[in-house]
Amino acid sequence: MKLADLPTPCLVLDRTILARNIRGMAAALSRLHVPLRPHMKTAKSIDVARLATHGQPGGITVSTLAEAEYFFGHGITDILYAVGITPQKLQSVCEMNATGAQIIVITDDPTMADTIAAHPSPPRTLIEVDSGEERGGVLPGSDLLLELAARLGTCLTGVMTHAGHSYAGRGVREIERIAEAERGAVTRAAERLRDAGYAIDIVSAGSSPTARHAGNLAGVTEIRAGVYMFGDLFQSEIETHGADAIAVTVLTSVIGRRPGRILVDAGGLALSKDRSTEATPHDYGYGLALDIEGNRGFGNAIVRRAYQEHGVVELDPTYPVDLPIGAKLRIAPNHTCMTAAAHDRYFVVDGDQDVVAIWHRVNGW
Amino acid sequence: MKLADLPTPCLVLDRTILARNIRGMAAALSRLHVPLRPHMKTAKSIDVARLATHGQPGGITVSTLAEAEYFFGHGITDILYAVGITPQKLQSVCEMNATGAQIIVITDDPTMADTIAAHPSPPRTLIEVDSGEERGGVLPGSDLLLELAARLGTCLTGVMTHAGHSYAGRGVREIERIAEAERGAVTRAAERLRDAGYAIDIVSAGSSPTARHAGNLAGVTEIRAGVYMFGDLFQSEIETHGADAIAVTVLTSVIGRRPGRILVDAGGLALSKDRSTEATPHDYGYGLALDIEGNRGFGNAIVRRAYQEHGVVELDPTYPVDLPIGAKLRIAPNHTCMTAAAHDRYFVVDGDQDVVAIWHRVNGW
Repeated sequence: MKLADLPTPCLVLDRTILARNIRGMAAALSRLHVPLRPHMKTAKSIDVARLATHGQPGGITVSTLAEAEYFFGHGITDILYAVGITPQKLQSVCEMNATGAQIIVITDDPTMADTIAAHPSPPRTLIEVDSGEERGGVLPGSDLLLELAARLGTCLTGVMTHAGHSYAGRGVREIERIAEAERGAVTRAAERLRDAGYAIDIVSAGSSPTARHAGNLAGVTEIRAGVYMFGDLFQSEIETHGADAIAVTVLTSVIGRRPGRILVDAGGLALSKDRSTEATPHDYGYGLALDIEGNRGFGNAIVRRAYQEHGVVELDPTYPVDLPIGAKLRIAPNHTCMTAAAHDRYFVVDGDQDVVAIWHRVNGW
Repeated sequence: MKLADLPTPCLVLDRTILARNIRGMAAALSRLHVPLRPHMKTAKSIDVARLATHGQPGGITVSTLAEAEYFFGHGITDILYAVGITPQKLQSVCEMNATGAQIIVITDDPTMADTIAAHPSPPRTLIEVDSGEERGGVLPGSDLLLELAARLGTCLTGVMTHAGHSYAGRGVREIERIAEAERGAVTRAAERLRDAGYAIDIVSAGSSPTARHAGNLAGVTEIRAGVYMFGDLFQSEIETHGADAIAVTVLTSVIGRRPGRILVDAGGLALSKDRSTEATPHDYGYGLALDIEGNRGFGNAIVRRAYQEHGVVELDPTYPVDLPIGAKLRIAPNHTCMTAAAHDRYFVVDGDQDVVAIWHRVNGW
């Protein structure tokens, strides 16, 4: 099967680029002697998880219980569910753990800590630390950190943080500084807890930009990152990776032709309405049009408007193209996590147009 | 089963509001003596299609071949596939039509018109007319209109247009004017084709705003509209419906608490990254927080930030709330079509918290 034979829109995953991205991150972290607990929220695929955990301890991170169930069903037991736990979800986690999973949960809430500790078979729990993102987590120097530890008691296994504000960083130097702040916050929390007598086995940190550019990870026991596997225009713009590292694209067909632009059958659903490159040096609209081989054959042709099933590609006047109705091209996404979520499978290629595998995704909740 | 028992995030559909919205649109069009060919791109559900076609001729509109296959599999044969056809998709349509479907396609491209006409069993075809949106379609006064008709020959069944630029309209008067321009364009195209000797059976127009506010539909044989069934914050802002007409919400749980805001488990995937109310009088961020009963119990509490699985709800200082971890609330969406697409089913209620049915959706392509 060739890309040209596929119904559109659909998701294409270039395994050659994927493997290179995975090797690159593994090498970067290996130099700092920290293992990777890959975040599967972007890929949501056991096939990708097998590649991403290769040579690593084997644990993964997930963002939904649906992912936890799916990966546990495929034999992965060491799973960190990295979204604040609720009483209802705690019950689901404990049921999976009763059948052999070893799901770790996170919290930053005192009442929830009591609920976890009161469970007859509580899961291992990490305290979420805020390293500057101001989304979830407690400050590493706060009284609340020690209060949470006291309430969790023997459930307490460690601390975790996510420097999501690294996405607002511009330039490698700034991201290095955020990485150091991330490390500083989570290791300080760990030290305070150890000083208070708690055993802290896991000191978990990470985001793709900070994981890629950290200069020092002393005291961190594991790194979590996910989007680095696939890459996207946004991560390229903030220098997490190069422009040739985008492994996932949306295959689409021309459905209309007008002077200076084409209509394609990848719209807001197939691409997502994510506009994250709006805040970067180069705004790619809803994505960058590539030729069917995945090359930049159309210059700066970007998806300027996105309706539900229609994308309007504004052509680059310096790259004249004349594509008939039904011609296929590929769109590099702004934000792979959002784009991939609209699709239930990957059509896998190895650097050319031959589809060598179909890999499924676990979407939803 | 109660809403409080459901895993979150998930999609809630209030059938009472849905039925009222469907009755309202049917009544508005009945006054103008035009039947409805409801667009199922928003609901993507046979259960909703049955309600939306009640008292109408029974045909529907779809936006994907997956919808066409699904609805045909559920017994609906008269289907307008309202996205420009390609050679590959034409083949799929003809295969379905060979087994009893009566799928109508659209085109605005001369080469594609030849491909349709050359097929041994071509589908009925409408010429897409541009009534001002400047997305797809030919101008009603253009030579291309007559050229397309000549190329299509006996496949030609009618004309269609979509005044999608009505979404940029503000106020009922402006939308009435756009509705009249939509009618004028598509009926002018029909008249020119009839004058040239073609039989034009279908003169199809519509968008939810213009369908709701058209003052005159003389010459139009059917109206297509979809989002009116569910409503959303954007359609409310542009006065397609009232603020009490939003039938679809996302049920979510509190997963974090900070002064002045809460974290919920509905993020960019469960809500979509659509920001359409950014352009309306009231910007609702990524959605408006409602209490579990669907009422505006939290004032102007909006989802200010949306990460993949985290939403940050900025609380309204005039509505103090103290929700514990795990408490459930509902988020009214900016743009229902985008939000619903992340979910594979509806949990149906009838104006209260009892789940009375689960209806499935046909996502993807």
